[in-house]
This record gives sequence, structure tokens and C-alpha cells, in this order.
Amino acid sequence: MNSVFSPEGSPVLASPPQPPQPEAASAVADRLAQLFARTAVERDARGGTPKAERDLLRASGLLALSIPAEWGGGGGSWRETLDVVRRLAQGDSSLAHVFGFHHLMLATVRLFARPAQWQPWMEQTARHRWFWGNALNPLDDRTVSSPHGAWHEFTGPKSFCSGALDSEMLVASARDAQTGALVVAALPTARSGVFVVPDWNNIGQRQTDSGSVVFEKVRIERHEVLSDPGPLSTPLACLRPLVSQLVLANIYLGIAEAAFQDARYYTLNEARPWHQARVDHVQDDPYVLQHYGDFWVGLEGVRVLADRAADQLDAAWLRGAALTEAERGQVAVSVATAKVAATRTGLDLCTRMFDVAGARATHGDLRLDRHWRNLRTHTLHDPVAYKVREIGEWALKQKHPQPTFYS
Amino acid sequence: MNSVFSPEGSPVLASPPQPPQPEAASAVADRLAQLFARTAVERDARGGTPKAERDLLRASGLLALSIPAEWGGGGGSWRETLDVVRRLAQGDSSLAHVFGFHHLMLATVRLFARPAQWQPWMEQTARHRWFWGNALNPLDDRTVSSPHGAWHEFTGPKSFCSGALDSEMLVASARDAQTGALVVAALPTARSGVFVVPDWNNIGQRQTDSGSVVFEKVRIERHEVLSDPGPLSTPLACLRPLVSQLVLANIYLGIAEAAFQDARYYTLNEARPWHQARVDHVQDDPYVLQHYGDFWVGLEGVRVLADRAADQLDAAWLRGAALTEAERGQVAVSVATAKVAATRTGLDLCTRMFDVAGARATHGDLRLDRHWRNLRTHTLHDPVAYKVREIGEWALKQKHPQPTFYS
Amino acid sequence: MNSVFSPEGSPVLASPPQPPQPEAASAVADRLAQLFARTAVERDARGGTPKAERDLLRASGLLALSIPAEWGGGGGSWRETLDVVRRLAQGDSSLAHVFGFHHLMLATVRLFARPAQWQPWMEQTARHRWFWGNALNPLDDRTVSSPHGAWHEFTGPKSFCSGALDSEMLVASARDAQTGALVVAALPTARSGVFVVPDWNNIGQRQTDSGSVVFEKVRIERHEVLSDPGPLSTPLACLRPLVSQLVLANIYLGIAEAAFQDARYYTLNEARPWHQARVDHVQDDPYVLQHYGDFWVGLEGVRVLADRAADQLDAAWLRGAALTEAERGQVAVSVATAKVAATRTGLDLCTRMFDVAGARATHGDLRLDRHWRNLRTHTLHDPVAYKVREIGEWALKQKHPQPTFYS
Amino acid sequence: MNSVFSPEGSPVLASPPQPPQPEAASAVADRLAQLFARTAVERDARGGTPKAERDLLRASGLLALSIPAEWGGGGGSWRETLDVVRRLAQGDSSLAHVFGFHHLMLATVRLFARPAQWQPWMEQTARHRWFWGNALNPLDDRTVSSPHGAWHEFTGPKSFCSGALDSEMLVASARDAQTGALVVAALPTARSGVFVVPDWNNIGQRQTDSGSVVFEKVRIERHEVLSDPGPLSTPLACLRPLVSQLVLANIYLGIAEAAFQDARYYTLNEARPWHQARVDHVQDDPYVLQHYGDFWVGLEGVRVLADRAADQLDAAWLRGAALTEAERGQVAVSVATAKVAATRTGLDLCTRMFDVAGARATHGDLRLDRHWRNLRTHTLHDPVAYKVREIGEWALKQKHPQPTFYS
Repeated sequence: MNSVFSPEGSPVLASPPQPPQPEAASAVADRLAQLFARTAVERDARGGTPKAERDLLRASGLLALSIPAEWGGGGGSWRETLDVVRRLAQGDSSLAHVFGFHHLMLATVRLFARPAQWQPWMEQTARHRWFWGNALNPLDDRTVSSPHGAWHEFTGPKSFCSGALDSEMLVASARDAQTGALVVAALPTARSGVFVVPDWNNIGQRQTDSGSVVFEKVRIERHEVLSDPGPLSTPLACLRPLVSQLVLANIYLGIAEAAFQDARYYTLNEARPWHQARVDHVQDDPYVLQHYGDFWVGLEGVRVLADRAADQLDAAWLRGAALTEAERGQVAVSVATAKVAATRTGLDLCTRMFDVAGARATHGDLRLDRHWRNLRTHTLHDPVAYKVREIGEWALKQKHPQPTFYS
Repeated sequence: MNSVFSPEGSPVLASPPQPPQPEAASAVADRLAQLFARTAVERDARGGTPKAERDLLRASGLLALSIPAEWGGGGGSWRETLDVVRRLAQGDSSLAHVFGFHHLMLATVRLFARPAQWQPWMEQTARHRWFWGNALNPLDDRTVSSPHGAWHEFTGPKSFCSGALDSEMLVASARDAQTGALVVAALPTARSGVFVVPDWNNIGQRQTDSGSVVFEKVRIERHEVLSDPGPLSTPLACLRPLVSQLVLANIYLGIAEAAFQDARYYTLNEARPWHQARVDHVQDDPYVLQHYGDFWVGLEGVRVLADRAADQLDAAWLRGAALTEAERGQVAVSVATAKVAATRTGLDLCTRMFDVAGARATHGDLRLDRHWRNLRTHTLHDPVAYKVREIGEWALKQKHPQPTFYS
Repeated sequence: MNSVFSPEGSPVLASPPQPPQPEAASAVADRLAQLFARTAVERDARGGTPKAERDLLRASGLLALSIPAEWGGGGGSWRETLDVVRRLAQGDSSLAHVFGFHHLMLATVRLFARPAQWQPWMEQTARHRWFWGNALNPLDDRTVSSPHGAWHEFTGPKSFCSGALDSEMLVASARDAQTGALVVAALPTARSGVFVVPDWNNIGQRQTDSGSVVFEKVRIERHEVLSDPGPLSTPLACLRPLVSQLVLANIYLGIAEAAFQDARYYTLNEARPWHQARVDHVQDDPYVLQHYGDFWVGLEGVRVLADRAADQLDAAWLRGAALTEAERGQVAVSVATAKVAATRTGLDLCTRMFDVAGARATHGDLRLDRHWRNLRTHTLHDPVAYKVREIGEWALKQKHPQPTFYS
Repeated sequence: MNSVFSPEGSPVLASPPQPPQPEAASAVADRLAQLFARTAVERDARGGTPKAERDLLRASGLLALSIPAEWGGGGGSWRETLDVVRRLAQGDSSLAHVFGFHHLMLATVRLFARPAQWQPWMEQTARHRWFWGNALNPLDDRTVSSPHGAWHEFTGPKSFCSGALDSEMLVASARDAQTGALVVAALPTARSGVFVVPDWNNIGQRQTDSGSVVFEKVRIERHEVLSDPGPLSTPLACLRPLVSQLVLANIYLGIAEAAFQDARYYTLNEARPWHQARVDHVQDDPYVLQHYGDFWVGLEGVRVLADRAADQLDAAWLRGAALTEAERGQVAVSVATAKVAATRTGLDLCTRMFDVAGARATHGDLRLDRHWRNLRTHTLHDPVAYKVREIGEWALKQKHPQPTFYS
């Protein structure tokens, strides 16, 4: 990765890009995270597309991390790729989000399409540093697919399209006009009729461009449709939502870790002991220490659960077509467990961090509330209550989650 | 109050102002709260001084609510005055804050000074619709008081001065240059040498102007010093921090109630059932109902605790100089209990409201995160852990809280 | 009450019994609670019927407390009667249970039957110091009522019959053999065919005799059937489950208060500071104080909620036949809120009390686990989750609980 | 292990005993746990010494599990040994307790004494199936050691001596009469002057015999004193409290797992749906499923944290004398984290299990409250608040726990 970053840490575009080997990916991720963190406050205020930072991700080679080496990628495992997601989220959770979803899109085409389809995409993504965006939201039925001889035509809007802006490729879904079946396809974002709308303006994850894509008579070629084996068609294909959920869990964890680090900084450097505490330094306050003990117990639990789930996901992935429903189901339970734990620990920490950072940490210029806003926004992706319920079905009845795009 | 508000609800300045009778105050407060709520989102984004809204408070007569009728006030009890604080906080917690602190300042002069001092201030406040601001922060020792013959000179900055901007009167504190003793005084905000700095820019309570006041050789007359009986000098004078803490508790509760009402609106009108819920309407989702049940149990507990504390405060206030330390101590425990409950219930509700309002409720234009930001900011006024500890001292050892400006 | 208790505290049977006036009832209750507490440990171990203590309750006159004065009773309000339940539970929750259910049975006949029916029962209960027991469990359909001309015949078992043993009167329910309708009747426990089985042996509430009653062709006279207005037939009649739920809430609260008092005793007298705490006395340990602060905030919340619900119940009761569904519904919400809060606070306190009482407080002879066992057993009467859901229906939709025997 | 258990599952004493290989240990442990579980209820009621079950542990060879193979042991790692502790705790937490403490005593002599001292003890323990008991409580200073030429004399009582009854060997501590220094020694339980008092009668862990040992002029030979390197003398020696704390964490986890399994059994086989749930089977109740989801998230978190801590302990153990304070400190934080998580998850689960098992699960014959009683008793071993504080010291200041017998 030395070719990508100058010694001074200012990135220069290397040519040709060399995807980082897994052992280096974490270092590159940490470096980018630090870089992103410097401007995260300003960009949180601004919203919109983090074009420069997306280009840094392109230049870093990390967009090829999960692509097998034979197609020019970094050959990273899910454990490694998700570790990068988590590290990026420590610096900027919006960028971790679009980065994680990019790899989710790559997983989507690999799991839903034939190798002959996805291998060129992998190869080109690695070579041209493509960024993939999301236009798949299966709960939004407004995009309709009409058959036109050898091709499909997609028409209608699609919401919650994270990372579609400034992407080279999209994975999009539509409902078949006649059967209502879900049609999923990969297509260049630049295709005629695709309008990516810069309308994302939410309280958190503000630079994820999770707004709308409008399809106006967009022609989708047959070979772009991911129909063999197709969406959620086999136990292996059903790993897709697990990649998705585990990307989320790692973003949540990264946010919580960022909040923890910010809290530490303010406790150690800015906070002052309360007069009733009768301690010289706030870091000796028994209740402050208690908060930090709680934070640590929570974070450590999430970390080990998330890592274990990633390892199980990797093992399942390697099973390929031999993967059984039961094996996939076990991974699903582990992923769900990690995600629930990450949600709870994170929300708690992002609120309580202020109890140890002190009243001055609410200064507007710090925008430390962004951790809570980012996490609160993203943890609504799908209701945690139903994730808990799924886990309960397993715990009580040994019944695995029914695969859907959220389970 | 018909004279204050035109039939269409657009307020006009009545002359002379008639402070609302207590029985009408709640209706006026509700009306103002609704008015404030209409622009709360825009003003939260903007920050700064809510001049128009402060003038509406002036026009409403509510600034005289806690002033005895004999001095031209509304003769409201603390229960009534705090009820108005709570109602205003449902519409805009910044305005509730400066309104509550205004009455806290009035209580301060009544409790720390001689009647001959405070009676004119009461009378003039009622007649001229004065707004009082806070410059008393006893933890900020940078303001120094130097004796100059018959008068004092205050010099130095003071932080966290809620409502000092656009106020007619201030209550300020300084440390005596020689003894270090706390000197508290009331003075016109317009006095020469008083500079109110518009530097408040925090993540919550954004229109409270809780920034700095800088005193530059400000002359304080002897009769402006609140030295007889003086700060926290008697059990009665020690009611002052209890008024303060109960103002906070009612603001917290009002914020939580606002969050609850907003959550309800979005659940009933915008949220959609999750596909796994197998219900037609989100309001029949068992987990959504559970959240609302929890919210209600929490809110009701806070409401009864806050009301009881206010009644006890009123009873203690009426005891006057006969009030004993033990009697004051009992009120202190009740106030602390209400405040701790309000803090916990509120923070929980302001986070969980999104679990029932749905992902779309995170839209930036709604700024529904402001409830959490407002509450999170204000609940750092003094650490809840030490409030719990004080209550524990009572519960375990029957030891009342040691009176301070925070207890 | 001096006539009931000898100066030494050993009760003697006064003749004729004088029901205590409400103002004295609390003192009598406290005295009995202290008496019961002395042997509560031994009787918890033993289980079975607390015959001597039941006779003390008879002798105290408290069994007539809720009976109107015109029928020889104490004329106590529900607030007063429930206050006695709570006080007794501080000494022994089993006795509070059978005492509370006794008054629930009296309420049952007053609410479900004609005055001509219940007035003699009231009068005789007051005069003869009758103890009423429960055989009404509406979820147990095994008891069948067959019409036999002018009378009914009850046959079959009934479970969870608290206080049926050593009672003079029972309120029993059965399902009509033909219609399945619920038939509720009052009858002497001594009637031929009634077999009260001493088969209660559960982990908590061990002296409540909440076991089985078996009916073998028991003749029920027409005037003993509570059919006019009948069970849950009118808003007024629907106060019955609210009395029941509020009896439970007050027992839970009394148990929690007992646990709190026991914890205090052991913290103050037996526990030793942990070496890392660097305090001389365990009562100065910051974490111990935190526990007590939490306990107090919880207990105070439950106390005010329970008292408010009792006052609302009294007001609704006094409305008589004019009581509307909506008015009754409001009381139902308040009662449910108090019960949920009592459940949560109590279970938490009964577990955490050991964290402050120290390891030695687990000594078997103290049986301090009985607070948790008693509360855990009784809080399963009906699922708290559905109580929360009911409250949620109100909070979200302004829909009152559907009256049942549990709501 | 076939030699130890007959085909019918009734254990017979094999001669010579063969310690199970680690791969078989878990199967043996499960078998014993099932056996112990059959009588756990009856023995919980009885208290006292589980002589027959202790002999089964002797016969199983598991007492030699942690002993290196070269001394005739099973050569099990701590991960494997603690896994057996956890499995035994699923059947009977008292037996898991004395089993875990037995291995803790073996660790104690290996860490505090010279190989020439402990190697014969290991060898004899493996050959003669010795059971080691605890008499080391360092907080009880009543046992005094007086030097008598070449030997020491121990005199005075010692409390909380788990597993001392029916043991062959003890590890005991005393305070040096002159210096107050802690003297730790290993000695045969049968030595003259050692009186093991059967006085343990607490609400939980009832068959751990955690009562008193009284030393009356007990002669301790020089080679029995563990003084080289001595107690907590080196980073390696300081692993001893970590073994202790991790034994506790695994017992807690095993108890929680037992409670979970019992809850499942009653939900699936005995509980009935609540009428308001409108489900045919209680296992479809949304709130029941939520409880199980919570249980699973909690248990999984503890499992991965406990396993990770055990692996770290093994790695540190293998470092031997090269182990640094910092390396030991990292293990200490991981062990503490696992223990705190186990405490919280376990107490929560042991209370809430009844919410899903139903009211009938409180039947006295089932004694399902024993899970809560066992866990509640044992989690008071040392205060969880100070464990959280230690973790907080690390999280905030990167300060490792100060080694003591509890950290």
C-alpha cells in the first residue's frame, strides 16, 4: 500500500491500483479512518456526497478487498472485509456504510448470478476501481419490470439507495409487472434513464446518499439479470442478507467504538471532577469508572460476537453449493445475535458517553451527537424487535430464521 | 387572557399586562406551546435568541405568574408555575428553560434578600414585563467582586448564563476578591460594563442563550447585593436550589412528553407495519404496543413524582422562616427523586421513540432528534450519579442532602 | 384497638369485636405486621396455614375494614384498606395476600349481587369476624354448574384458591354445564361437598393456601348466585378486577419495602466495606449508596402511583351505577401502571438487596430469599407483558383495557 | 472412560483410574451433569455433603484433568477444565463449585510453590483421586501462623472453606503472628488439629460445604508452605486469582444455561398461552419469544467472552516465568469482563425464566428457584461493582487491575 499513500500520509493515486493484501488492509483502513475523522464533523453538517473520500477509497484499493485474487482482487475474507468496515466506521460511519454496501453488492452478484456473469464484473471492478451502489430495497414495490423481448425495462422510483450517487454500478430490484416476482439486476449507473436523486437529508448517516433512484424506461439486458440461481434461491444465495446484516452490525460497532474513543478523550482532557466526588481527577470518579466498565463489557461482547459471526460466515461461504439450510441457519442466528448486541450496546454508549465527557462536550462545534444520530438512524434499517424474535424462535424451538432480505 | 391573544390566536400586546390567574395559566401556556412548536424545528436549526417568542412570553403575563398578587403578579404557586414550565417544554424546551430560570431568579431574590429589596423588583417585573436572566453559575470562579466603599465591583467572565441575552435583569455571582465568599447580586442587564456574549452554540437547548456574560468593572450597589439573609443561609433560603432542580425536572418531563406525542403522531400516521408482524396496522404490533406501555409507565411515574415534589415545595415555601432543615431536607429528597426519574425516563423515551415512529421519522426536516439533543444537553447540568447518591444517603442513613446550589 | 391487644402485645380476643376506624387501622396493621414478621421466617419454611395469625387478623377487626359502617364495618376506603394490605405485606406477604383477597371477595359480592344479598353477608362478616376465601379462578373451567330446579349444583375441582382453608365463606365460580356461562356464587366453606385441599406448596407466598378446592355435588341456593347485576356486567361491576389488581400491586410494593428494610438492616449492622472501596464504613461505599438511591427512586415511584390509583378507585366506587366505561377505563390504566411499576421495581430490589447486604445475608436461617420467592411467585398471577400491552393500547390509541377478570 | 461408567450408566470404580483425555472430558462431564441433575432438587433441599456425587467425580478421573500428563493427569488446558466446570454447573452448581475449586487449589500449589513441592502432590492426586478443598480465604485473618523452628503452627478459624469437607488435601492460609504476612500452605485434611465444621447452610450453593475449618495447633511442615515464589509474587503466580475468577464465571454461566434449559422445558411442555395472546401455543407468544431472544443474546455473549478468556489464560499459563505484568493484566481484564457479563446475564435470566415457564413452574417440588438462589449466593463472592470499576480503570486509563486474591 505504500504506493497509494505518500509518506506524509497524503494519498496519491497509484496506477495501476493494487488491492491491499488482507494483512495490510487493516492498516490502510485505519489510515483512511483517521483521515476521514478529521473532516467528519464538517461533512456531517454539510451532508451530501463525500466525493473526495470516496475517491480515496477507490485509490486505496480497498474496494477490491473482497474480490478473489484470481479476478484481481485482494482475496479478503468476510472477517477481513468486515474488519475494514468497522475500522472505517470509527472514523466516519457514512463512508463505512457505502463501503460495506459496495461489498454487499459484490456479494449479491456473486450469490445470485452465474460465474460467467459476475466474473467480468469482479475483474472490471478491481481494474477500474468501481464503486457499486444500492438500488435494491425489496420493500419498495414502485419500481416495475416489464419484459421486452430479450430485455427488461425498469420504470419507477426506488428509495433508500445508499451509495448510488457517484457509483459506477448499481444493483437494482423491480417487481415483474405480471407476476410480481422480484427481479434483481446489475447495471451501470450511467445508463440512460437512471436518475440518482440527491435527496438524502436525514438526521444521521448523512453522507450515505441513501436517497432515491428513479428509473425511467431503463433497459436491462438479459445477462444483467441475476436470475441463476436468483435471489435467495439456495442456502448459499441466502447468505446475502447475512452479509448485509453483518455489515450493519460492524458499522454499529464501529460507531460505538468511535463514541467510546471520543468520550475517553474528553474525560481525560476536558472534563472536571464534580465537587461532590472529592477526587482530584475526574478519571478517579467512581461513577465515571463504572460507566467505562459498562462500556467495555458491552463493547467486548459485541466484538467477540461480531468476529465469531464473521468467521462462521466465511466458513459457510466456503461451503459453496454444499451449504445446507441448517448450516446457513446457524450463521443467521450468530449474525442476528451480534447485530442485536451491537444495537443495544451502541445506543446505550452513544447516550451515556456524555455522562463521562461532561457538559462541555455538548458544544455544537464538536457535533458529538453525531454518533447517536448515525447509530439511531441506521439501527432503524429493520426493527430490532423482530431480530430478537427470530433469535427467540431459535432459542426456544430450534427453528432457524426464515430467509428474507432482512434475515 | 383574552386580552393577550386575539381570537385568531395571533398575540397582541395588551396594555397594561394582566398576569394570568393560575387557573388560566395552563391554558395560556398550552396556547403558547402550540405556537412555539410550529417554529421549533426552524429555530432549533438556527439557534440564537428567540426574540419574538420571548416577547410573546412577556405579553402573555406569564412572567409574573409566580409573583404574589400584592405586587401585581399572578400569585401562582410553584405547582402552577412548574406546570407552565412543563407545558411550555412540550412545545419548545428552550423557551421553557428561560421561562423557568426567570422564575428561579425571582425566587432567588425573594429567598436571599430582604423584602425591602425584592418587593420593588417584583412590582416592576410585573408592571414592566421584565425578563430575568441568569449569571450566577457558582462553579465559575472567574468573576471577582472587589469592595469599593459602599459598592462592589464585578469583573471577569461568567459561563452558562441562560437567558441573559434579551433580559432586563440579571442575577449574578462573583467571588469576593479577599475572602473568596460568594457574592450574589441583582442588577439591570443594561448596566455599563455588562457584556452578554451571544456565544451559545450547543447540540441542544439551542435557543437558551446559555453562553457567557463578561463583567468589566461593573458597579454593584449595596442594595443590589443579596446578603440578607444571603445565599443558602437558612433552610428557607436553601429552597432556591430545589426550585432550580424542579424546574429542570419539569423541563425534562416536558421534553419527554413532547417526544411521546411526536412518536404517537408518526406511529399513527406514517409508520408501516413490519412484514414479519403480520398485522394490518402498525399500532397493533405487539412490540410497538410494548414500547408505548413502557413509555406510559415511565411518564406517569415522573408526573406523579414531579407533582408531589412541587406540592411539597409549596408547603415548605409557605412555612417561611419557620422551615426547618429536616423539612427542607424532605423536599430535597422528593425533588431529587423526581429529577432522577425524569432524566432516566426521558433519555430512554427520546431514543426509543424512533423504534415506534419508523425509519422515515429520521428525515432531517423533522429534526426529531432535537428531543434527545435537548434532553441530553440539559441533563448534564449536574451529574445524575450524584443525585442518585444523595438519595441513597437518605434511603440508607436518613441523611438529608447537604444544601448546595445543586442540592 | 387497645381492647384487642394486651399491653404486652399478645393479642386477646375482644368481644364484641370493634372494627378499627380507618385512622387507627394503619397502626393496627403495623403492629400485626411486626408480630407476623417475627415468625415469618419459620412459617415460610413450614408452609401451610397460618392459623394463629389468621385469628389475630380476625381479632383485630381489620377483616371488617372495608365494610360500610352501617353494616358494622370500619367504613374504610380502598385507599385505607390497600394501605393495610401494603403494611401487612411488609411483615408477611402471605398474610397480606389472604387479607387482601378477603376484601376482594367482599368487593365481589357487593359488585356482582343485589344489596339484599350482600348486606347480610357484610353484617355477618363484621359481627362474626368471618374470613372469606377465594375459589373463583375463572381460567379453571373444570368446575361445572348444573341447574337443579331452584338451585345449582357445583361439581369439579378449582385451582389457585387463595385463603380458602380456614375460611368461613367462599366466592366460587363454575361454568354452566349447558351454556358455558360463568356462574359466581358465595357460600359457606363448611357446606357439604366442599373439600378444601391443603395442597399448596410453592416457592413463594407459602402460607396463602392457594391450592385446590374440590366441589362434589355442592348445592348452591339461588340467592347465593351473584347474578344481578352479575360478573363484569356493568362498569361498576368491572371495578372488581381493578380491586384485585391493586391488591396485588400493594402486596408487591409491601414485599419490596420489606426487602428494602431488611437490606438496610444488614448494610448498617452486618456488612463490611470491600477492601477496594477505601471507606471505613460500608454505608459510605459509593456503589452501595447508588443501589440505595436506585431503590428509593423505584419505591417512591410505585408508592405514589399506587396511592393515586387507590384514590381513583375510591372515586370511581363512589360514582356507583353512574360510573361510565371511560371512567372505569381510566382507573384501569392507573391500576395497571402501578402494578407494572411495582413488579419491576420489586423484582429488581429483591435481587439487588443482596449486593448491599453482603454475602453473609445469604445465611439460610435468615431466609432473605423469601422476598424474591414471594414476589416472583405472585407476580406470575397474570403476565406483566400483557399488562404493559394494555397500557400501550391506551398510550398509543386511547383505548381502555377490555374488562376481564385480569384487566 | 468406558471403564468408569458401566453401560447402564451406573458408575463403577475403575482401578487404576484413567483420567479422561480432554476430548472425552466433555462427554464425561455431560454424563455426570445429567446424573447429578436427577437428584439436584432433593440435595438442594437437604444441603450437606454430596458424598456419593463427590465419589463419582473421583471415579470419573476428572479430578486429574488439569494435571499434566507426565504426572499422571489428563493434561487438560484451562479451556477444557473450565468447560467441564460449566457443564457440571448445568447439572448441579454445587458440584461444579467444589470441582472448580479443586482445580483452583491444584493451580495454587503449582503457581505458589516449587516444582519439587507440587510435583508429588500432582502425582498423588492423580493416582489416589484426591479431592482438594479450600481453606484459604485471605479476608479472614483469624487463622494465625506461629513459627516453631522448622515448622509453622496454624491456629484459629477460617470461613468460607468450600469443599473442605470430604477432601484429602487442603490449601490453607494464615497470618504470620509477627509480620502479618500471608502464609499459604498445603496439608492433608486429616492432619491432627484440623476440624472441618459442617456448618454451611445458605440459601444457595447448598452442597458446597462452604463453612468453617478450625485449626487447633496444626503443624505445618516447611515443605508444605507455598513460599517459593509465594502467593501473588510474580506475574505467573498472579494467574491464580484469574483461575479463581474464571471458575466463578463458568459456574455462573452453567447456572444460567441450566435455568435456560429448565425454562425451555416448561415453556414447551407445561405453559399455556395467555388468553389475550390469541395464539394456540405459548411458544408463539411474541413476548415469550422476546424473552428467549434476550436470553440467547445474553448467553451467547457470555459464552464467547468466557471461552476467549480461557484461551488467553492458557496462553498466559504457557508463557510461564516469562509472563509479564502487562500480559497478565490483559488476561485479567478479559476474565473480569466475562465474569461481569455472566453475573448480569445470569441474574436476569434466573428471574425472568419464570415469566416464560409460567405460574405452575413455581411449584415447590421443582425448586426452580434454586438457580436464582445458587447464582445469587455465589455472585456475592466479591462485589461485581468493583469488578466493573477495575474494567473501567482499564477502559479509561489503560491501567490493569492490581493483582489481589480477587483481581
